[in-house]
Amino acid sequence: MSMLTINTKSKKSSARAGILQLKHGSVRTPFFMPIATKGAVKTVDAGDLERLGAEIILSNTYHLMLRPGVEILRTAGGLHGFMGWKKPILTDSGGFQVLSLSKFRKVDEEGVGFADPVDGSRHLLTPEKSMEVQEAIGSDIAMILDDLIDYPATREQAASALERTHRWAERAKKWFSGNATEGRQLFGIVQGSTFEDLRRKAAEGMVAIGFDGYAHGGLSVGEPREESYELTSMVNEILPEDKPRYWMGAGKPEEIVEYVRRGCDMFDCVLPTRNARHGTLYIWKGEVTEPDFYEAIAITNEKYRADFSVLDPACDCPTCSTGTTRAYLRHLFSIEEPLAARLATLHNVRFYLRLMEQIRNSIESGSL
Amino acid sequence: MSMLTINTKSKKSSARAGILQLKHGSVRTPFFMPIATKGAVKTVDAGDLERLGAEIILSNTYHLMLRPGVEILRTAGGLHGFMGWKKPILTDSGGFQVLSLSKFRKVDEEGVGFADPVDGSRHLLTPEKSMEVQEAIGSDIAMILDDLIDYPATREQAASALERTHRWAERAKKWFSGNATEGRQLFGIVQGSTFEDLRRKAAEGMVAIGFDGYAHGGLSVGEPREESYELTSMVNEILPEDKPRYWMGAGKPEEIVEYVRRGCDMFDCVLPTRNARHGTLYIWKGEVTEPDFYEAIAITNEKYRADFSVLDPACDCPTCSTGTTRAYLRHLFSIEEPLAARLATLHNVRFYLRLMEQIRNSIESGSL
Repeated sequence: MSMLTINTKSKKSSARAGILQLKHGSVRTPFFMPIATKGAVKTVDAGDLERLGAEIILSNTYHLMLRPGVEILRTAGGLHGFMGWKKPILTDSGGFQVLSLSKFRKVDEEGVGFADPVDGSRHLLTPEKSMEVQEAIGSDIAMILDDLIDYPATREQAASALERTHRWAERAKKWFSGNATEGRQLFGIVQGSTFEDLRRKAAEGMVAIGFDGYAHGGLSVGEPREESYELTSMVNEILPEDKPRYWMGAGKPEEIVEYVRRGCDMFDCVLPTRNARHGTLYIWKGEVTEPDFYEAIAITNEKYRADFSVLDPACDCPTCSTGTTRAYLRHLFSIEEPLAARLATLHNVRFYLRLMEQIRNSIESGSL
Repeated sequence: MSMLTINTKSKKSSARAGILQLKHGSVRTPFFMPIATKGAVKTVDAGDLERLGAEIILSNTYHLMLRPGVEILRTAGGLHGFMGWKKPILTDSGGFQVLSLSKFRKVDEEGVGFADPVDGSRHLLTPEKSMEVQEAIGSDIAMILDDLIDYPATREQAASALERTHRWAERAKKWFSGNATEGRQLFGIVQGSTFEDLRRKAAEGMVAIGFDGYAHGGLSVGEPREESYELTSMVNEILPEDKPRYWMGAGKPEEIVEYVRRGCDMFDCVLPTRNARHGTLYIWKGEVTEPDFYEAIAITNEKYRADFSVLDPACDCPTCSTGTTRAYLRHLFSIEEPLAARLATLHNVRFYLRLMEQIRNSIESGSL
């Protein structure tokens, strides 16, 4: 039985809106997951996230397995108990962070070996080990460990990584079927770099193994945007309609709108939180169905020095609804006051969550 | 007419409890002022402060005159408008920060010259200029500019600084009487280092000029605690009973209790906020009238790694009342997550504000 209920299918595009039922509650689709990398969305606590309207968050297996570690997470009652978040959590597999953050990395058929950049300790992340850690975290949705390659990759590299990812997916599924707590879900990941036939083969392979949902992986790494859009549509035609489709790492607001149009349901991205910390803030300009529906402003710009208007009068986030002015925010950034990052993060996360609300409303009203 | 209404005078000590009426509202005495140095209590916004129960905050003239500067503050409607805080604000005069933070400092009869450590720009802070900046800030209580000296000081240094402070106090009073917005108050400062006769003379001099309140200044700089207690009692006997007495820079919780016993009404200190950022957190152990009524713990200690009890079950701050565990807080500090400083700051500020609530209750019930 599928845990995804699609309530509305767009007549204008492949967009769909519905409800995804997870162990810790239901989530309206399409949705965006704020990133709580190390067990916290930077500067923001679990209560803040709930007030912002987050229904699910994402956390990182790689970071959590190193600190606080599996033992602490188990004793705490998983990440939910540890960080005091009661709604669903999705965890990635750890593979991407090994690729991007570890000093030492060695991949073979068994798994991915790496060294902790903090204390140098050696670790081996196998498909089974990743499942074990995600079980200790207690995430509602676990992701399979995939074999990742750099972009651009040769066809041979992509094909070889894809085949290994398929074998690892089978091992993850086997571990998960035998050991996972009831109600948790496991998602497969479609790889294949930007080679159309490889991504097709990857999608068919993942569907053959059978997962609770499917992710578009290994994209958004530098390829042309249009290419990525087309590969997404192509893969979504292969994926079963009654399973959620997760676009890993997307994206800019207009990219999310486009991936929704092409049939995707789930998103995560560092952009709203990372941009917030650097003073890049999203301002509403119109409806998500219009071009240029928002503007990203650099609040540290001199022109905001004496701008006593509210950051975004159209925004209902805690920062804007309490009347925080652009001049005050700019001041906080200019003196490197940590409150700046917090007020900006609350704003940008709310922007993304409201973006998804607008997307869902537009699907339901037939305009997207 | 005095703005201080004393409702209860202790029979056990010189403690008193009442209400201080200020331009932006009334404040229950004795009270503690969280420090919003540069227009923000680090990691905490104006709404947070109100929820914590703060009735007045302190901000720093030195920092605000450099950034955002007087012009921006005037346009913003003072610091109240700039930071969105509606309750009373006290500002120091800037003299202490010139002494402790500036690279270059030159004092003569006119005032204090200094260079901005950020951009090297030269500034002259005179008694009148300090008043002008505090007027632009719009603080409810302005402090006179005093001539500060290092500890230990010779008797000659202390006497000379005291006389200059007296002359500067007269200039400040003159400016204030002619220019300050109605309802704002001006406080004198009693100097004299640790010389009893000099502090007595300073107190008498300040009273002769006549201020809305009086501060104990230039103490808590390394002198023995008992000496500071005795000098406080001696000066409080000279100060008029119907004016508020402000102990600048105090202090540890037990010091505040002792200064209240000796007749002081107002306090500010960097300890709760600075300690919070370093993981030193206050835990309730009993009533403020008992010895050892609290413990300061170092949350980064290894022993809290798997301590899944709430930080302080006796605390009603946002951190503790949402069930944040010691293990989670320790984790946030160990990964240098900025949320750690925020959760700790909320806790410590609430501890100090509740300390004052307990002190007021103990005065009213006759136990302090």
